[in-house]
Amino acid sequence: MKLASLNVGRDGRLVVVSKDLKRQADASAIALTLQAALDEWDRCAPLLRSLAERLEKGDLAGEPFDPTRCAAPLPRAYQWADGSAYVNHVELVRKARKAEMPATFWTDPLMYQGGSDGFLGPCQPIPLADESWGCDMEGEVVVVTRDVLLGATREQALGAVVLVGLVNDVSLRNLIPDELAKGFGFFQSKPASALSPVFVTPDELGTAWRDGKLHRPLEVFLDGQPFGRANAGVDMTFDFGTLVAHAAKTRTLCAGTIIGSGTVSNRGPDGGPGKAVSEGGAGYSCIAELRTVETLQSGAPKTPFLKRGNRVRIEMRDEAGTIFGAIDQVVGA
Amino acid sequence: MKLASLNVGRDGRLVVVSKDLKRQADASAIALTLQAALDEWDRCAPLLRSLAERLEKGDLAGEPFDPTRCAAPLPRAYQWADGSAYVNHVELVRKARKAEMPATFWTDPLMYQGGSDGFLGPCQPIPLADESWGCDMEGEVVVVTRDVLLGATREQALGAVVLVGLVNDVSLRNLIPDELAKGFGFFQSKPASALSPVFVTPDELGTAWRDGKLHRPLEVFLDGQPFGRANAGVDMTFDFGTLVAHAAKTRTLCAGTIIGSGTVSNRGPDGGPGKAVSEGGAGYSCIAELRTVETLQSGAPKTPFLKRGNRVRIEMRDEAGTIFGAIDQVVGA
Repeated sequence: MKLASLNVGRDGRLVVVSKDLKRQADASAIALTLQAALDEWDRCAPLLRSLAERLEKGDLAGEPFDPTRCAAPLPRAYQWADGSAYVNHVELVRKARKAEMPATFWTDPLMYQGGSDGFLGPCQPIPLADESWGCDMEGEVVVVTRDVLLGATREQALGAVVLVGLVNDVSLRNLIPDELAKGFGFFQSKPASALSPVFVTPDELGTAWRDGKLHRPLEVFLDGQPFGRANAGVDMTFDFGTLVAHAAKTRTLCAGTIIGSGTVSNRGPDGGPGKAVSEGGAGYSCIAELRTVETLQSGAPKTPFLKRGNRVRIEMRDEAGTIFGAIDQVVGA
Repeated sequence: MKLASLNVGRDGRLVVVSKDLKRQADASAIALTLQAALDEWDRCAPLLRSLAERLEKGDLAGEPFDPTRCAAPLPRAYQWADGSAYVNHVELVRKARKAEMPATFWTDPLMYQGGSDGFLGPCQPIPLADESWGCDMEGEVVVVTRDVLLGATREQALGAVVLVGLVNDVSLRNLIPDELAKGFGFFQSKPASALSPVFVTPDELGTAWRDGKLHRPLEVFLDGQPFGRANAGVDMTFDFGTLVAHAAKTRTLCAGTIIGSGTVSNRGPDGGPGKAVSEGGAGYSCIAELRTVETLQSGAPKTPFLKRGNRVRIEMRDEAGTIFGAIDQVVGA
């Protein structure tokens, strides 16, 4: 089934959405919000599924679904932890600044604790107070868990994944170096991120969801031009089971925890950086990776970071069409 | 007024507590949970205050207040961001490992994004799966904000502080070096923290709350022995207004955001590390600081980190008695 939150109140109002994202049915009689449904997933999931089936069959007319009326599926969450599972991407970025990447990065997941108190809706503008901060998009896959026990194995952790979606993990690139140099990770350099209009249960993904990875291209557009189409199932060193288990090593995770894949990134056929979409490559899911490639190729980056008025679109499709709906944001003041 | 959450359900049930922490009155008719009250603070605060006054005057009998029946005031929160405002402490720790502290640490607050999805109740055991992780307590002051706008000034940020409390920011010291070396900050090294039984509005603190700081000694006990009594208002380089404004520089903060002071730490009278309480000093609010002093004095730490069965107590008192109640935790399996 597919779930979304209408932009009502602080936590949205839960709706079930048809597979083709054309229609929705109010689910607030089952759970007022998605967080409430996740809090009681065993009770709510079968009821929501039954509602979704009635909507799908046409037993229920429903109403037109409009992503611009959506909040993030979880407008605020109790946890957002973002992995960096495409280690290829990390290695590239380090290479461009002539830094060695520790070998343990291939075996021990990199993860940061993100701010979860305010996710942007899929079509809300990215607020950018200062263009010199170097605003960038990052296209990623996310999963949402039910409660996870401290010390969960990879298999237990993967079994706790109940929803899958997309995120635009907005980053302020020019604030990152000073912040990371302080040693305590990101804070000001990671403003509010946006989530896809719809989160879906893994069964909606068919065989594309396997081995804890989502095997579909993540389509990223900048001002309407194709920017990236890297396959999220390729070059993902750590699957979601491993990422969730990493997060749960020393503490329980509350239902509604959102875990991110990190910026989706594919190597080129020669094992090096991938080519731009315009050159027939898989392109990039963030501007920083293209700038890294430019730096490696010509000594300096050429593509600027986002400015006000730029438009970012992040989407994933299957044979039937859009899976999660599109994150479609304009950079605003 | 003083507020607590009984250990009921995922988010607790809100009660108003008498100034002497002897009695409580059910506040769930005003707001079921503390988060719900914070979400509508303008509506709820006057009603809660009126209830507190009736309890104080004896117009309302109330029930006995028992901290062991309490959850954390916010059993789960949308945000927990911890500053490191006692720069003296940071400098000491670096000194012990012969690392230079950047001069900007005196002017630019250090802050990390913590996990907020599960706070321990004040008397809940600290779950410790592996003693070799090097478990430590950290006694700190926290504030809770209402909604804070992106780019809030220090004054606006300080004005958004609605509650004050204490935290035991549990740390797994032996996991920290490897984790920080990866560059993305703490994750596994910061398991669930515990909050004081009661959070209070700033007016309860009288003149001890001034300049955005809480001018009272933070009393820390280890297995019943006085371990620390550093004054939280002394050597605090960044006040809470500055810390909250730092957090809000590039994003809004949701009502119920918890901001920590970092481990409270006082210099000795000579400007160097403080002495132990047993030697007449202000002592320490974490074991790591004592180990640092031991390293500086004799080349190696002597005091071990916490083991199962150790008991940690963190409290702050005024002339009338305990302000927030005590965090009183045993280290468990």
